[in-house]
Amino acid sequence: MTDLVTVGETMLRLSPPDNERLETATELELRAAGAESNVAVAATRLGTDAVWTSKLPDSPLGRRVTSELESYGLETAPVWSDEGRQGTYYIEFAGEPRGTDVIYDRANAAVTSARAEELPTGRIRESEWFYTSGITPALSDTLEETTETLLWTATDAGTKTAFDLNYRSKLWSPEAARETLTDLFEHVDVLVTAVRDAENVLGVEGSDEAIARELARTWEFETVVLTLGAEGALAHHDGEITRQPAFETETHDPIGTGDAFVGAFLAERIAGGDVASALEYGAATAALKRTIPGDIAIVTPDEVAGVIDAEGSGISR
Amino acid sequence: MTDLVTVGETMLRLSPPDNERLETATELELRAAGAESNVAVAATRLGTDAVWTSKLPDSPLGRRVTSELESYGLETAPVWSDEGRQGTYYIEFAGEPRGTDVIYDRANAAVTSARAEELPTGRIRESEWFYTSGITPALSDTLEETTETLLWTATDAGTKTAFDLNYRSKLWSPEAARETLTDLFEHVDVLVTAVRDAENVLGVEGSDEAIARELARTWEFETVVLTLGAEGALAHHDGEITRQPAFETETHDPIGTGDAFVGAFLAERIAGGDVASALEYGAATAALKRTIPGDIAIVTPDEVAGVIDAEGSGISR
Amino acid sequence: MTDLVTVGETMLRLSPPDNERLETATELELRAAGAESNVAVAATRLGTDAVWTSKLPDSPLGRRVTSELESYGLETAPVWSDEGRQGTYYIEFAGEPRGTDVIYDRANAAVTSARAEELPTGRIRESEWFYTSGITPALSDTLEETTETLLWTATDAGTKTAFDLNYRSKLWSPEAARETLTDLFEHVDVLVTAVRDAENVLGVEGSDEAIARELARTWEFETVVLTLGAEGALAHHDGEITRQPAFETETHDPIGTGDAFVGAFLAERIAGGDVASALEYGAATAALKRTIPGDIAIVTPDEVAGVIDAEGSGISR
Amino acid sequence: MTDLVTVGETMLRLSPPDNERLETATELELRAAGAESNVAVAATRLGTDAVWTSKLPDSPLGRRVTSELESYGLETAPVWSDEGRQGTYYIEFAGEPRGTDVIYDRANAAVTSARAEELPTGRIRESEWFYTSGITPALSDTLEETTETLLWTATDAGTKTAFDLNYRSKLWSPEAARETLTDLFEHVDVLVTAVRDAENVLGVEGSDEAIARELARTWEFETVVLTLGAEGALAHHDGEITRQPAFETETHDPIGTGDAFVGAFLAERIAGGDVASALEYGAATAALKRTIPGDIAIVTPDEVAGVIDAEGSGISR
Amino acid sequence: MTDLVTVGETMLRLSPPDNERLETATELELRAAGAESNVAVAATRLGTDAVWTSKLPDSPLGRRVTSELESYGLETAPVWSDEGRQGTYYIEFAGEPRGTDVIYDRANAAVTSARAEELPTGRIRESEWFYTSGITPALSDTLEETTETLLWTATDAGTKTAFDLNYRSKLWSPEAARETLTDLFEHVDVLVTAVRDAENVLGVEGSDEAIARELARTWEFETVVLTLGAEGALAHHDGEITRQPAFETETHDPIGTGDAFVGAFLAERIAGGDVASALEYGAATAALKRTIPGDIAIVTPDEVAGVIDAEGSGISR
Amino acid sequence: MTDLVTVGETMLRLSPPDNERLETATELELRAAGAESNVAVAATRLGTDAVWTSKLPDSPLGRRVTSELESYGLETAPVWSDEGRQGTYYIEFAGEPRGTDVIYDRANAAVTSARAEELPTGRIRESEWFYTSGITPALSDTLEETTETLLWTATDAGTKTAFDLNYRSKLWSPEAARETLTDLFEHVDVLVTAVRDAENVLGVEGSDEAIARELARTWEFETVVLTLGAEGALAHHDGEITRQPAFETETHDPIGTGDAFVGAFLAERIAGGDVASALEYGAATAALKRTIPGDIAIVTPDEVAGVIDAEGSGISR
Repeated sequence: MTDLVTVGETMLRLSPPDNERLETATELELRAAGAESNVAVAATRLGTDAVWTSKLPDSPLGRRVTSELESYGLETAPVWSDEGRQGTYYIEFAGEPRGTDVIYDRANAAVTSARAEELPTGRIRESEWFYTSGITPALSDTLEETTETLLWTATDAGTKTAFDLNYRSKLWSPEAARETLTDLFEHVDVLVTAVRDAENVLGVEGSDEAIARELARTWEFETVVLTLGAEGALAHHDGEITRQPAFETETHDPIGTGDAFVGAFLAERIAGGDVASALEYGAATAALKRTIPGDIAIVTPDEVAGVIDAEGSGISR
Repeated sequence: MTDLVTVGETMLRLSPPDNERLETATELELRAAGAESNVAVAATRLGTDAVWTSKLPDSPLGRRVTSELESYGLETAPVWSDEGRQGTYYIEFAGEPRGTDVIYDRANAAVTSARAEELPTGRIRESEWFYTSGITPALSDTLEETTETLLWTATDAGTKTAFDLNYRSKLWSPEAARETLTDLFEHVDVLVTAVRDAENVLGVEGSDEAIARELARTWEFETVVLTLGAEGALAHHDGEITRQPAFETETHDPIGTGDAFVGAFLAERIAGGDVASALEYGAATAALKRTIPGDIAIVTPDEVAGVIDAEGSGISR
Repeated sequence: MTDLVTVGETMLRLSPPDNERLETATELELRAAGAESNVAVAATRLGTDAVWTSKLPDSPLGRRVTSELESYGLETAPVWSDEGRQGTYYIEFAGEPRGTDVIYDRANAAVTSARAEELPTGRIRESEWFYTSGITPALSDTLEETTETLLWTATDAGTKTAFDLNYRSKLWSPEAARETLTDLFEHVDVLVTAVRDAENVLGVEGSDEAIARELARTWEFETVVLTLGAEGALAHHDGEITRQPAFETETHDPIGTGDAFVGAFLAERIAGGDVASALEYGAATAALKRTIPGDIAIVTPDEVAGVIDAEGSGISR
Repeated sequence: MTDLVTVGETMLRLSPPDNERLETATELELRAAGAESNVAVAATRLGTDAVWTSKLPDSPLGRRVTSELESYGLETAPVWSDEGRQGTYYIEFAGEPRGTDVIYDRANAAVTSARAEELPTGRIRESEWFYTSGITPALSDTLEETTETLLWTATDAGTKTAFDLNYRSKLWSPEAARETLTDLFEHVDVLVTAVRDAENVLGVEGSDEAIARELARTWEFETVVLTLGAEGALAHHDGEITRQPAFETETHDPIGTGDAFVGAFLAERIAGGDVASALEYGAATAALKRTIPGDIAIVTPDEVAGVIDAEGSGISR
Repeated sequence: MTDLVTVGETMLRLSPPDNERLETATELELRAAGAESNVAVAATRLGTDAVWTSKLPDSPLGRRVTSELESYGLETAPVWSDEGRQGTYYIEFAGEPRGTDVIYDRANAAVTSARAEELPTGRIRESEWFYTSGITPALSDTLEETTETLLWTATDAGTKTAFDLNYRSKLWSPEAARETLTDLFEHVDVLVTAVRDAENVLGVEGSDEAIARELARTWEFETVVLTLGAEGALAHHDGEITRQPAFETETHDPIGTGDAFVGAFLAERIAGGDVASALEYGAATAALKRTIPGDIAIVTPDEVAGVIDAEGSGISR
Repeated sequence: MTDLVTVGETMLRLSPPDNERLETATELELRAAGAESNVAVAATRLGTDAVWTSKLPDSPLGRRVTSELESYGLETAPVWSDEGRQGTYYIEFAGEPRGTDVIYDRANAAVTSARAEELPTGRIRESEWFYTSGITPALSDTLEETTETLLWTATDAGTKTAFDLNYRSKLWSPEAARETLTDLFEHVDVLVTAVRDAENVLGVEGSDEAIARELARTWEFETVVLTLGAEGALAHHDGEITRQPAFETETHDPIGTGDAFVGAFLAERIAGGDVASALEYGAATAALKRTIPGDIAIVTPDEVAGVIDAEGSGISR
């Protein structure tokens, strides 16, 4: 019996150090990165018994992915494939007004051909929770079908499902995303979404509270979590709205903030915490993530508790 | 027919990484750097057909300079020399109150012996614009004479001339600069100068508008551009004053900001833009430059347009 | 009028430093690499007026390729594309018995859709020589057709053609290669091939001299060059066999040795040298290449002459 | 049911890059290293279901150890301790005549206080094999006692025991080692030792065959494996001597060669191979190890098979 | 005759670059660090004839310490020991809310066994000033006794004594510190302490002025210097209170700020400056320190003067 | 009373890492390097009380030189100058046939204007030995005169003089060197020279023994030491020839081998050793030097003794 199963693509992230431009870079930093494994690592670090699965090429590049994920303590259960490539993304970090730019090179990744029957669906059936994000069905027609099957498998087995909308404009249009994602929502218990995606993709408007209520009403989600950027987050659950401000943070690497939030939110829910404490746990973990290089929240429960208790500040010696 | 010819020294810039002190550094980053090539690269990146020329030692160090400049797409037309060294400068980056310190090691560089007849003056005659800066005549008596000859050659051939005052206190005194530079001004159509140099070197006083007007009146410049640091820039042209605020930027490396501004200003003027749009183009490129390591604005027209349109912000994925 | 046009894919090469394994690497060195641009750079460095063309994605990654090639002094004439990715390859360097391993990630590169009519075939018609290799037709059906059209275009215009068999077992089988390549041979004047590929792919057997004669006889090549690894090279031309031993070298990076050889061979032929001196020039350049990191022979004519004259040895100070 | 349990200290290894001296180093490479985890990783990579355990400080440094080991796919079962430090060793690599120098800084490591009852001895009882080395009892009086208890526990439960003598002159004298180690031998089924340690520590003399026979006879080992450096290895088993020459290798990092040999030897024995094939498997893995930075044989079964089949040579592309 | 002798442990500081976590670091930066040598270097750089002494292991690691300290111009007079290890500390830098974390690994360092009679106490007797900090007696019972003997030796010889309370919560409790330190105070002329340590360790309360007066009154210090963080510092001397605000600074590495302050304060006092100018000198040096990587204020008198005169700002070229 | 004073230029050495070409390097390693300081450090490390002096620019670059030299334990006594630059040299390391190439950038270094009366000649008079090399008079006319004055000063005061011919073809012709150097020889007691320089510069021919005898006879040297590369060295002293073979070594950086030899030779002579033991000491230190990055022999007496005793081999742990 596992606490949490996540499914989705993990890429290799290639980034020039020290704000160099890709066009002139002579070296690249290499890290594993993907929404679903980011969430699974964050949850694992915080006490959840999680497993991540996907389809990876049977090559040093595919093993590079599991090697890093396992170094964080996560259990991985990949399907190894002789077909398909290892997805990558290039990221050029920069301050404003240049901004940080992402170039996906993930077409034809091994995972894009993953059918549900290849994946360890038994693990999903035996798990308390299942998580994937809106990136997964965006990657291929096969994965669109697979995502629906996995969500159905979970709900059919009584496994709770959490889903982060995670809209990526470089993968599909808002219209395409809306059509696909709303079909999946009947199998989703907990929806997480940035408020701007709720507006832009789902077409829901109004105050953030109104949006949360409308989402919950329309698609009958048990819980809706809206992330509000610097404003923190807000949840609708059992008809009630709970707000959580963001913790102050000095940002070293912003990528993966949302995944850290979701991973910690789920960890706290799985550990029996209520929505309010899960939001707080998520916000504290997200604040820590932003101080850490890479997509992944390499944190400890003590550190998260320290943020919540407003300790951990300055120099500890 | 070329759009723009620039002439001036390009050095090798040696800087310790990560705010280390020169006194204790064990490695140095190496980049090509020089006002006139900085301007030429910025203009080239933004669509200008530019060429840079200078006199370089016929050695791996001289080739190191052209190699980097050509990697940015710039055409170089160096004169290769068996005499003279490759100029360098050491730069130690630091926050306040240490401040960033430059040590020039450029005496006896090959370029300091460059006479006009050695240089490809035909390219200047056939070009629409010619650019050099006040650094060039400061480097040697020969270059002082060469600078005057080149400016005369340009105006004689109907090539427009742009000149950045670029006062460097480590090269000469304000008095020496004033005497030399004001002799050149009769051949200059567009003068660019920091407002503090107009005061300190040229002895012009008053409000920034008054200074611009006074400069234009005294030396009959077609256009005067005053750079005002965080206040942006201001131009006097056809009797009118145009102001351009600076775009907000997160500074990674401030060196070369002024050259990025001038290169983009000229690119836009050459492309037919008016002074106002050239100022805006210059300011946007300058803001981008500050996010980029090194002296040089490795930018694209889309990025500059994005700054002007206030796009390009946050993380694009 | 250009001396040499080359067409073929240039990839980004990603390699872990210091013999690290890909599976555990945290950084990768990044360089441009491709047989046809390797050849073009080597020729350019040695005085040839060469141009390389291909189809590249209109992205920082595509510009990364031209940026590096132009830094070596090569003229590039890419077709920029909104479709297709930037091909890459990963290379893990290791001594024996681990050996050096290459993982291609070049499927669906922009170049794989390049049709002859998109490419600057006019440059080929106006050039003295045209070069491509057996890698190009192996990359896609479109490129197989394109390769034939380009070779036909060249011979039709009186442009001499050189072709390196360059068999890659990770791209196709010997049988598939044989079928495709032998169809192209009627348009080829100079064939270069490793002797083992002549045996393995073309099925020619016997002593190396016999193989060279048999290749020349069967496909009526003007010149056949066999590379023999540590044994050097051998050419058949005008019915005569010329042998060239390899120069001794301390290998730092063996990749691109053959391309350095071909680039220098062609440079010397273009400069009017006979086959014997071209072989010698090729062998000397190949020896230098092996001391240089990356795929590309960043050399000077003086250095190549120094190897031939047995100078350049020890420490020069 | 596990195939193999290993127990012993894993240190953090700190080494200056590029042959720098420790006295002048400004950065250090950081890796996990320890005979027993080296053996366990090598076995795991080759298909064995292995687990490593030890006592580690409950700190980022202790987690640094398990993080790296798990990245190689090894299961770790550490006891976390609030007492004791993380052992380290500094290693300065150099060619002859400087030689490679090790400075241990492992006194008072958490593991030195590990008592058998703290460790997961149940895992040993349920395992097919147990492995530790002569380093473990050398580290403290407590560990001397613990080692004996663990070996006794294993043999009592029918778990086979393998033991590498691994004499370290910086930890104890030959006399002290002899006294302690020979007391343990009654619980050891498979003894591995360098021939020079058999002579120097155990005082056995003669030809290598004679030494192996004498060791087997005196202490009734089921199997004795003598490692002979460049001469390969030799085993005595069932009264027979089997010899295995070393595979040729280009050494990048020699540390951990013996552990790679043992890990692969055990993996092959566990998989049902006979002593001869286990020796061959060990020798091939040892040869691969020497091409890999760090103490650990990050290899695949295919690579080991490739060495045995004399493939994997040159550049694979 | 020396101006200043300092005694105390200097460690090797190991820090992951670029905000990486220790748990996942693959390289560490290495620097010498210790309150008493930090103070001695700062003073030396500013014209004081200082010497630092301690007990170090006779190993490359011990020599690594003196090598770096001497590179800054400091005279070192270590006692070399065959016993005891080189103390280290690991530091993980991070922004809030992660915060910067220190892991000491200094138990059983060679210095912890240093008895006064081993150390060059003659140098203390012949020096104008002696300095140590509250870290020294916290390291071992031996060092507690040694510290008292050294302070007694100094005052007995007419050498002035300065003492920085430097409370470290990872070494001892406030109560233990109070008991030990207050016993030493009868031999202390100048006490420096952070105001929070005065409160937390010494139990003195009230306004900062009241605290300074109370400290001076209770233990009859000639001078009391309270450091107030961002508020600067305050001294009580001859019954008068002098305040010094902090200079603005952009912090690159905050470690060693207090030691830079003390070193410069003492340098100015030794040079004949009054308390007010010594405070100013200390504050300016502390501001510079924060821009410099590592524990140590590698500064020049000109730079400190520049901060006081509000020069040194921006880019100097 | 000092054992040894050396005078000569110390440069900053700039080298691309990992066999990169200067033309394409993006970072450079930075080290202090100069024959006379190399000799002084080697001697210091081996127990000699040595001091090095020269004229350096009063800048971070000049301090970079003394900082590094003092880190090795050497006493430096520089004259600080406001005129003249810091000499540098660029070195590109490569295997054959590329070979290692040096580009000097040392013209107009501060030292080139050093007159004897500026330098601490009192230290020479009070020293047992004085050393400089043939590089010093090659650097400027002033230094030619200064070298003669210093040598005269030494012999006048009874200080023994050692001189390494150190011919540098990039500084002067053999003829110019011969004319200048032979004028100095009347003040030289111990001449060291590579045998090829004796032939090429001094025009002495014959077997190596004949050359040594001829040198000793012609210029009445007390001792002549000929270095013979891989053949080791040979001395003529008191009419006797002593030979010393080279110790085997794995070369990491060959620069400074001769200086290491001379420094150790002098250290052993100063310590009372005879010529044979000094040659052996020199050869052992030279062998160690070749394993160490940089120009300087950072060695210990134990290590040198270990080479002589044929210990120190393999891995010590």
